[in-house]
Amino acid sequence: MTSWLVNQQPGNLTPDRAGPGGTVVVMNLPSDGSPSSVRVGLLGCGHVGAALVALVAERRPEIARRRALDLEVVRIAVRNTAIDRDVPVSGDSFTTDAASVVSDPDVDVIVEVMGGIEPARELVSTALAAGKPVVTANKDLLANHGAELYALAEANGVDLLFEAAVAGAIPIMRPLRESLAGEPINRVMGIVNGTTNFILSRMAADGASYVDALVEAQNLGYAESDPTADVEGYDAGAKVAVIATVAFGAMVVAGDVYHEGISGITQADIELAADLQHCIKLLAVAERTVADDGEPQIGVRVHPTLVPLDHPLASVNGSFNAVFVESAAAGDLMLYGRGAGGRPTASAVLGDLIDASANMARGHGATIGTLEQVRIAPIDDVVSAFYLNIEVDDRPGVLASVATVFGEHGVSIRSMEQEGLGGEARLVFITHGARERDLRATLDELRSLEAVRAVGSVLRVIGD
Amino acid sequence: MTSWLVNQQPGNLTPDRAGPGGTVVVMNLPSDGSPSSVRVGLLGCGHVGAALVALVAERRPEIARRRALDLEVVRIAVRNTAIDRDVPVSGDSFTTDAASVVSDPDVDVIVEVMGGIEPARELVSTALAAGKPVVTANKDLLANHGAELYALAEANGVDLLFEAAVAGAIPIMRPLRESLAGEPINRVMGIVNGTTNFILSRMAADGASYVDALVEAQNLGYAESDPTADVEGYDAGAKVAVIATVAFGAMVVAGDVYHEGISGITQADIELAADLQHCIKLLAVAERTVADDGEPQIGVRVHPTLVPLDHPLASVNGSFNAVFVESAAAGDLMLYGRGAGGRPTASAVLGDLIDASANMARGHGATIGTLEQVRIAPIDDVVSAFYLNIEVDDRPGVLASVATVFGEHGVSIRSMEQEGLGGEARLVFITHGARERDLRATLDELRSLEAVRAVGSVLRVIGD
Repeated sequence: MTSWLVNQQPGNLTPDRAGPGGTVVVMNLPSDGSPSSVRVGLLGCGHVGAALVALVAERRPEIARRRALDLEVVRIAVRNTAIDRDVPVSGDSFTTDAASVVSDPDVDVIVEVMGGIEPARELVSTALAAGKPVVTANKDLLANHGAELYALAEANGVDLLFEAAVAGAIPIMRPLRESLAGEPINRVMGIVNGTTNFILSRMAADGASYVDALVEAQNLGYAESDPTADVEGYDAGAKVAVIATVAFGAMVVAGDVYHEGISGITQADIELAADLQHCIKLLAVAERTVADDGEPQIGVRVHPTLVPLDHPLASVNGSFNAVFVESAAAGDLMLYGRGAGGRPTASAVLGDLIDASANMARGHGATIGTLEQVRIAPIDDVVSAFYLNIEVDDRPGVLASVATVFGEHGVSIRSMEQEGLGGEARLVFITHGARERDLRATLDELRSLEAVRAVGSVLRVIGD
Repeated sequence: MTSWLVNQQPGNLTPDRAGPGGTVVVMNLPSDGSPSSVRVGLLGCGHVGAALVALVAERRPEIARRRALDLEVVRIAVRNTAIDRDVPVSGDSFTTDAASVVSDPDVDVIVEVMGGIEPARELVSTALAAGKPVVTANKDLLANHGAELYALAEANGVDLLFEAAVAGAIPIMRPLRESLAGEPINRVMGIVNGTTNFILSRMAADGASYVDALVEAQNLGYAESDPTADVEGYDAGAKVAVIATVAFGAMVVAGDVYHEGISGITQADIELAADLQHCIKLLAVAERTVADDGEPQIGVRVHPTLVPLDHPLASVNGSFNAVFVESAAAGDLMLYGRGAGGRPTASAVLGDLIDASANMARGHGATIGTLEQVRIAPIDDVVSAFYLNIEVDDRPGVLASVATVFGEHGVSIRSMEQEGLGGEARLVFITHGARERDLRATLDELRSLEAVRAVGSVLRVIGD
């Protein structure tokens, strides 16, 4: 085992200070007085991994004092050992052989922040099978292979914790798993992708075009040079699969999630939404629904959404994330914070690491509970309110013919406004809740009407 | 032991359904296949207690299935057994002898929702000493006798959980205790009293006077007929003492908290704040500071505060609560939701009850960790930005003489506006961060200036 460059031995800890004021109690350390040693093997040392090593070094004395755990990162697997990662660990802790970190008898706990499916899946599986707790920030791994990994953790009685996999530093997994464990959760709606929220916030605040806002996000490092995973909703889709699994106790995978991205959102959409006292957010939604045959279903989807300006999610701007939980007994909850970044994500990993270490010291792991079988709702079954923007001929009788089409398909209209005149005329509708399949049939028939020149944006709406 | 009127035996649970869609996994129940029995003794059966009994009955099958715990409320202590509480428990479960509930060998876990200090303190102590986990929603008990109770829980290796004691259904205690355990928290600011937030929201939204808004709150049942505990900040003060204890791992009691209430806030203050793009909220603040001698201190205070309109706390309106956490690594977090009400509070109690029961089944309790001794900062030492509203003679040279007084006391001015003319003239200042004692000395000297007719409202400001 290698030693720390930063020398922070528990024996050097400052004793509790005696202060002059306030009622005071000092609780007992474990009976022998010394913190339990926890040797951490780290898989991956990018932004999050390096931030974690630094954070563990900074916080080691206080964690030893307050939690009786002496955390030490002893081995780190990286792809290239030649890169200087500027972390307070000696160079010989690094290896390119990740499997040797997992199997090292001097490693007690594994932290996986390498990302991707393989070899992460293989390494995490091996660790769990060997009875080593695992903390991971890997949403793709969980959204695709969560079932087998949770089962493996359960079977071996060890922790598999993943607070950092969704919404970075925001404590959402633990509240869903524990605080709300007695709670029938009906729906979770999240702004869980900072890149798209930054882009939409810029479009709303500054009148920027989608392309200009995307380029700005790329220049600031918020968006990748290939932004597909963010802007088309794949990143948010993997996260909402993980959220749904924990919130509903049912296995949901990335492939179950319906998604639409934001690349089609125009400045005109943003302005029309603002006229209606709404903003546009890319929401990841997980909800319980009931199928036509009366069986419960889970709907999981990611799409741009009109959010009323007085809804708490409307005030989540820039690269911030938030998760809004609607539950029967607790009512509405929202958890807001930094969804990405090395230090915030590392902070969430460290919280899990402390939890896993404490459980290990006590000889058992936590559990996400028994997962159930529930059908995934086909998108056709999903009920939403919709915003529609339809270009029409500006002459008497047009509204009546358009409204008739809505009515024939059972889609009820909540509000309508005409915008523009003559060749610029368009009708802007917001519907009451309608089934996706009925709305699509409505759109198909509207497109066939002579008076309808084009069907513009169609966006879902929350609220009411 | 009495049986349920609602017959929900675990043996009757519907087996897991086989669904046609999605990847699916069913995890193992405990090896013998049956959930662990957990018999709950309830102390108090008001709004929260009655809601808890109903919630346990509703959720019992799912908790048995998902968490392998069979929860049953078997005994209930009340002051008056003659009142029909309309809960799904047989009448002979009720008793006026609370001590007999705690000592009953058929009771495994105690839930205390009776409120007040005694006999709650005595009963909770007895339960913990007997090795029975306790879940409580009693902020006053914890804010006054937390030290001895946490120590008793620690010494007996059982849980003392209290998520419901602060901000109702909002999961704040568990994230502070666990998710952020590795996190240096610098400051926590909460809107933790729904009554005062309702009153201030009405004053801002409708131009209501303080008295009219208070009467409306009383009519709606949000405020007591004697509203002192809410409007003068005592309720929020007890809550912030509990928050500070958990956030900083240091014992803080209600008596340590400085408080100012909202009864002096006028409609003019609300309007002037709005002109400056701020709203006024009653904030409960807990922060780490450093004393003049370099020693760490904890500041705990409750007071009306100007909050910038673009701060997430500004969007917390009506009877909602929110807690905003500023931490070094995780960045800013906010947790938002229902702070009161029978069902929301009972939901938080049930989350704790499941957690305590699961820990009991595994043979150990959780812990809030080792509490440290830290000094409480005297209010004189606290640094805030201030808003001041000063009525002055409207003549040349007055601003210079006023500004000189600020400068002499080391209070730096961030912005100044003159409002009104002639006999209505006043100067509205916002300062940079200033020590309370320097600001008070400034005010004393300002009052002695001939050109100053009166010093109006003085309020703290957050932001920047």
